[in-house]
Amino acid sequence: MAENLDFAGVLAPVATPFGEDLSPDAERLLAHCRWLLEDEGASGLVLFGTTGEAASLSAAEREELLERVVGGGVPAERLIVGTGCCALSDTVRLTGHAVGRGCRRVLLLPPFYYKAVDDEGLFRAVAETIERVGAAELRVYLYHIPPVARVGYSAALAERLRAAYPEVVVGLKDSSGDWATTAAFLDRLPGFAVFPGSEVFLLDGLRAGAAGCITATGNVNMAALARLYAARDSAEADALQAEATALRRAVEAYPVIPALKAVLAHHRGDPGWARVRPPFTELAAGRARALIADLQARGLPLAA
Amino acid sequence: MAENLDFAGVLAPVATPFGEDLSPDAERLLAHCRWLLEDEGASGLVLFGTTGEAASLSAAEREELLERVVGGGVPAERLIVGTGCCALSDTVRLTGHAVGRGCRRVLLLPPFYYKAVDDEGLFRAVAETIERVGAAELRVYLYHIPPVARVGYSAALAERLRAAYPEVVVGLKDSSGDWATTAAFLDRLPGFAVFPGSEVFLLDGLRAGAAGCITATGNVNMAALARLYAARDSAEADALQAEATALRRAVEAYPVIPALKAVLAHHRGDPGWARVRPPFTELAAGRARALIADLQARGLPLAA
Repeated sequence: MAENLDFAGVLAPVATPFGEDLSPDAERLLAHCRWLLEDEGASGLVLFGTTGEAASLSAAEREELLERVVGGGVPAERLIVGTGCCALSDTVRLTGHAVGRGCRRVLLLPPFYYKAVDDEGLFRAVAETIERVGAAELRVYLYHIPPVARVGYSAALAERLRAAYPEVVVGLKDSSGDWATTAAFLDRLPGFAVFPGSEVFLLDGLRAGAAGCITATGNVNMAALARLYAARDSAEADALQAEATALRRAVEAYPVIPALKAVLAHHRGDPGWARVRPPFTELAAGRARALIADLQARGLPLAA
Repeated sequence: MAENLDFAGVLAPVATPFGEDLSPDAERLLAHCRWLLEDEGASGLVLFGTTGEAASLSAAEREELLERVVGGGVPAERLIVGTGCCALSDTVRLTGHAVGRGCRRVLLLPPFYYKAVDDEGLFRAVAETIERVGAAELRVYLYHIPPVARVGYSAALAERLRAAYPEVVVGLKDSSGDWATTAAFLDRLPGFAVFPGSEVFLLDGLRAGAAGCITATGNVNMAALARLYAARDSAEADALQAEATALRRAVEAYPVIPALKAVLAHHRGDPGWARVRPPFTELAAGRARALIADLQARGLPLAA
């Protein structure tokens, strides 16, 4: 079980840029990934998470973007690829594709359309995926994000899945936004690679055995989060955590995905970065300016 | 606006059968569609609704099934095809495919992964679909099913969409399960083809201007519902409605989709019909027997 805890730290679920016609823009995505890893100090990246508007992309669009990112020099072993869809056939396809491109770590949303389903049905969704992909090197991280998906993994289900596939089901992203839930996963699943879905819980998580965090805000604040992670055992850790938490809260005052894209558009001097696919809408210009001014006042080194 | 009300009556959102490996079974589906239309008296069918486990099918699986059903003799003009997905690219693809196969009526779920999105974003999701498909003959029915999708169409949004595309956006399926919601759609959208999502509201709906209903239970009880629809202005209508409502309530005591498939498996003497894709699980044998006995006692003419 130790191997999976080697993959740790602060990960960004990367935002997905779009062209003028709202087609995915692989070049902008590749540059963003390389910047986060090479310049900002990200421990790793999640492709096709909630922040990446993955649900707004077709399976074919996701496959092509992954190929362009890996083909463009982003190391496959630094990635977790979101592959969980509503349809088992899509989940199996995308998981097999990722593994085939060297990306053996995947993040599995449960099938999220149908509600009031039981743990047995969700167990089968994951088990069928693992069995059908049939790759010994596959590593599955369960994606628990009930505020959005409204269907999630109970701790009991995570335990059952790990017991059934101990080499494969190795971790969980907890985007419940609720520390008690994260603490329960950590308590019941020792050795599991638990990533809280927000840097607000980074230090508390690390002290309780978490692997790090996977956080949307990492798209714009990764350098500071990487410093916090590096300083996690030092005297300055709590002060750095307080700064990171405050910045997160400032972003959360806005619709997070359009807000992060507006910040990236400003920082890169590239208005196209702000585009979002429906059902999202771009942040209005005035709100974007207010957010950027707020983040600059908090010390985020954005372009003037 | 009169044209769209010619497409009316009781429609079944057909269940999707699966083979042993959980691949969609086009032959069983075609036979089921023809039975409902030719023997049971359905006014029309919805392919790929919630009951059809559409969210559990990939885009390619949906396209192939549609081609097999239409190619197998089911008239395209009797169908509404569910094409609304989370990804704009999938919705555009499936809508264009359906129209290209002669199925100009589509049922559009809003993109349902992201929550707390606003009406402007949902408007854009539908508008972009209509603009990108670019087919004058397209007819869109909005699919409002907040108990499952958790994202829905407000009456104000439906009005705005109809005002923007008066020839295209012609109706709505209301699966809110709430009569006040249905009444509000009917009140604010005169001439709109509103289909309540349950036969419980069939007579009340028709009397208030609804076009009919689209109901899961129609998969097993269509003959009785067609009789009720035909008798809607007669003295026996209320008694037939009461029988239909009671049967619906009996089915609703179970997980509806596995329950309906268990009933079909029994009636056809074909246990394979009971299969469901995860996250559903098949109804346990004892519960299936109890349901079937209950429905037989209520006069549903199932095989012994």
